[in-house]
Amino acid sequence: MSRHAATSSSYSITMRLYTAPDHGVVGAVATSIAQAGGIVTAIDVADSSSDRLVVDVTCSAGDAEHAEELAAKVEALEGVEIHKVSDRTFLLHLGGKIEVHSKVPLKNRDDLSMAYTPGVGRVSTAIAEHPEDVWRLTSKGNTVAVVTDGSAVLGLGNIGPGAALPVMEGKAVLFKRFADIDAWPICLATQDTDEIVRAVEMIAPGFGGINLEDIAAPRCFEIERRLRESLDIPVFHDDQHGTAIVVLAALTNALRVVRKDLADTRIVVAGSGAAGTAIVTLLLAAGCADVIVWDRLGCLTSDREGLAGPKLELAALTNPRDVHGDLHAGLVGADVFIGVSGPGLMQAEWITDMAADAVVFALANPVPEVDPAEADKYAAVVASGRSDYPNQINNVLAFPGVFRGLLDARATEITVDMLLRAAAAIAHAVGDDELNSSFIIPSVFHPDVPRAVAAAISGS
Amino acid sequence: MSRHAATSSSYSITMRLYTAPDHGVVGAVATSIAQAGGIVTAIDVADSSSDRLVVDVTCSAGDAEHAEELAAKVEALEGVEIHKVSDRTFLLHLGGKIEVHSKVPLKNRDDLSMAYTPGVGRVSTAIAEHPEDVWRLTSKGNTVAVVTDGSAVLGLGNIGPGAALPVMEGKAVLFKRFADIDAWPICLATQDTDEIVRAVEMIAPGFGGINLEDIAAPRCFEIERRLRESLDIPVFHDDQHGTAIVVLAALTNALRVVRKDLADTRIVVAGSGAAGTAIVTLLLAAGCADVIVWDRLGCLTSDREGLAGPKLELAALTNPRDVHGDLHAGLVGADVFIGVSGPGLMQAEWITDMAADAVVFALANPVPEVDPAEADKYAAVVASGRSDYPNQINNVLAFPGVFRGLLDARATEITVDMLLRAAAAIAHAVGDDELNSSFIIPSVFHPDVPRAVAAAISGS
Repeated sequence: MSRHAATSSSYSITMRLYTAPDHGVVGAVATSIAQAGGIVTAIDVADSSSDRLVVDVTCSAGDAEHAEELAAKVEALEGVEIHKVSDRTFLLHLGGKIEVHSKVPLKNRDDLSMAYTPGVGRVSTAIAEHPEDVWRLTSKGNTVAVVTDGSAVLGLGNIGPGAALPVMEGKAVLFKRFADIDAWPICLATQDTDEIVRAVEMIAPGFGGINLEDIAAPRCFEIERRLRESLDIPVFHDDQHGTAIVVLAALTNALRVVRKDLADTRIVVAGSGAAGTAIVTLLLAAGCADVIVWDRLGCLTSDREGLAGPKLELAALTNPRDVHGDLHAGLVGADVFIGVSGPGLMQAEWITDMAADAVVFALANPVPEVDPAEADKYAAVVASGRSDYPNQINNVLAFPGVFRGLLDARATEITVDMLLRAAAAIAHAVGDDELNSSFIIPSVFHPDVPRAVAAAISGS
Repeated sequence: MSRHAATSSSYSITMRLYTAPDHGVVGAVATSIAQAGGIVTAIDVADSSSDRLVVDVTCSAGDAEHAEELAAKVEALEGVEIHKVSDRTFLLHLGGKIEVHSKVPLKNRDDLSMAYTPGVGRVSTAIAEHPEDVWRLTSKGNTVAVVTDGSAVLGLGNIGPGAALPVMEGKAVLFKRFADIDAWPICLATQDTDEIVRAVEMIAPGFGGINLEDIAAPRCFEIERRLRESLDIPVFHDDQHGTAIVVLAALTNALRVVRKDLADTRIVVAGSGAAGTAIVTLLLAAGCADVIVWDRLGCLTSDREGLAGPKLELAALTNPRDVHGDLHAGLVGADVFIGVSGPGLMQAEWITDMAADAVVFALANPVPEVDPAEADKYAAVVASGRSDYPNQINNVLAFPGVFRGLLDARATEITVDMLLRAAAAIAHAVGDDELNSSFIIPSVFHPDVPRAVAAAISGS
């Protein structure tokens, strides 16, 4: 098992077994799975007859290879035959994860004449005469478009719009679950900045907000900026601002744990893509005075050759002590490391060169910059993007409440103040009595968070 | 009442009345509404105390002015005060008519890890490796985009994308109700042909089909043609082909009633816009040999000056007897009139100049080319787009089943054969024992029609 990642429901399989009519065999199956490092989560005897049992065994594995290994161990047992192995994650996605529901009855001709022609004509006429009524008389006021070009999907990179669709549907599911918002995925068959901007402008009339998703940097910056200028509904690139909000919330609480003041804290941010840039921007707005940005070429300095665009702007705003060098050099004396870059870029031992009570956020997905368990040996507070360690930094804490607040306020734009207030709301959801180094961020299922974030955004 | 249209639920109001504590007043209210031509559909005493009654009276009116008149009559009654008048159609549209539902549970972290990260990553990877799996592992396979530019909405004309949204939402409701299809409205902030084409191409990856809706002619022809060439999913302009299918179905049955053969029938089509062009095209494909198209300048002839584009093509395919002149001239000796043009263009008496057992379809909405009741005096079969006369020609009979069949077959295109088969399926839903001059077309609530149309389309 040591060579596999921790088991996860995302690698959960159900094996339908035909076994000898001996209930002792079921015990042997469970034992063999456990010995191979799997976790049995359910055993159902689906059918029992004099000559055989039909048993459905569900278990979690660490990865796809591990799942195959578990099946092989079970198959090797005396008196056990595997009839079928089902991957529960794929089963869940069959046919998609979202559907459209009607909020109005359509039982008879009267219903039809109100919901559709001729009645709907009066509603359309009312909106034509008073365009603001579209917010009241249609679904626009509760609707968000989740727009991607499929260029930077999760940690998978540029997999295109079709392959991005399961992620965007998942996002729509989260919008509904956590904020009762009706979100629809728009997966664009273009990766051209001008075309993406124009596509979103054109589809905007039917939506109350635009959630840009998984669009690669640096194009995402220009797309967002131009859309914010041209549209009268809020535009929010979750990979930037959602991440920044949750990172600032977690950092606020980590500093509560180690009793340091944000304004006096030295912070190193590894990664200058969509997330890194937004995090740095929000940290500066929150009052951080000493932020160093590191990318694969070293610490960002204003004298580095070849800098342009967003990176040049970042360099001008950061690194006040003009630190040159690699990541290790940047970390010397730092209070906080925030990684939104790539796997294994940082050695845990480097933390000993940071200031006392170091805070380490290793957020690269699925493999962090430094192993959280290793980092935990040296740092006072460790967080990651993983659900199998404490302190998971998860955007789900932010974006549903953010859009709920924007739609409730019928906001036309998103301000930096809103982002700061949202971060504070998430941080405050962890009470003083709950706060400790393993609990700096509320659960994504914390029932108060979306409402608190919404209220922070709408100012209500 | 004679100056008002027939009462309709689409002009239904609910009045909340405060009355003297005398139940006899309620009777007086009902009587006064009936005398003023309204139809009382519900009376609820919401509250009763010693000094007053609170009564909700719901009634149907003929139009907005009539509804106001009914309220005034009630207000004038002794001992009755109107607290509030609610328009039921507007109430129904408040907050929109559609919402997004999740098909997967999201109760705990395990659910989250399968529906979203990290589990969804494996699903996205599978689609990236096998693009066809997007049909199986996402909602694409059951999803249709209802796309409009708001340029020709119902009979309201160019009211723009926002005002078109209630209609597109209504369409989505109908897709769900009649064919369990998940349709989402896309209201485009452009009326430029190139931009519309490109917008639809860009959003196409997330959808299994494109329903173009209420796009003005002649731009709708080019948009549909270009999208059919560039996309690998079916594209269907309902105002054209949906209308053509239902008209052909109704005509098939009208000719069953008057015992004429389609191939020998002389047909005049008034209107050469989106619907007219599609109807003529389908009639020719169905075997009609003698079709005359009339527009505001007269019968279309190949020698008319200034003809270009779609109209020139129509002229070349129609009018084999080279009839010149106005609509009345075109109708002399014709078996069938099909109007998809404007209100009151035809005099009922002209029907006497048509062939015996004339068939008249006056489909202009909301006011037909000729009053159906007047036409009924002279024609053997009369149909209209109105729900308050027999034989309503309603696209709802076609488009849900059409897309159900297309999605079931995972069709990449729509053929003329499919349209002909769909029309036949609708026509055959009216059995010989049911068929008569007042029943040539099934009810939109006929439970078998969507399935029959779907089977006709998919060839299953």
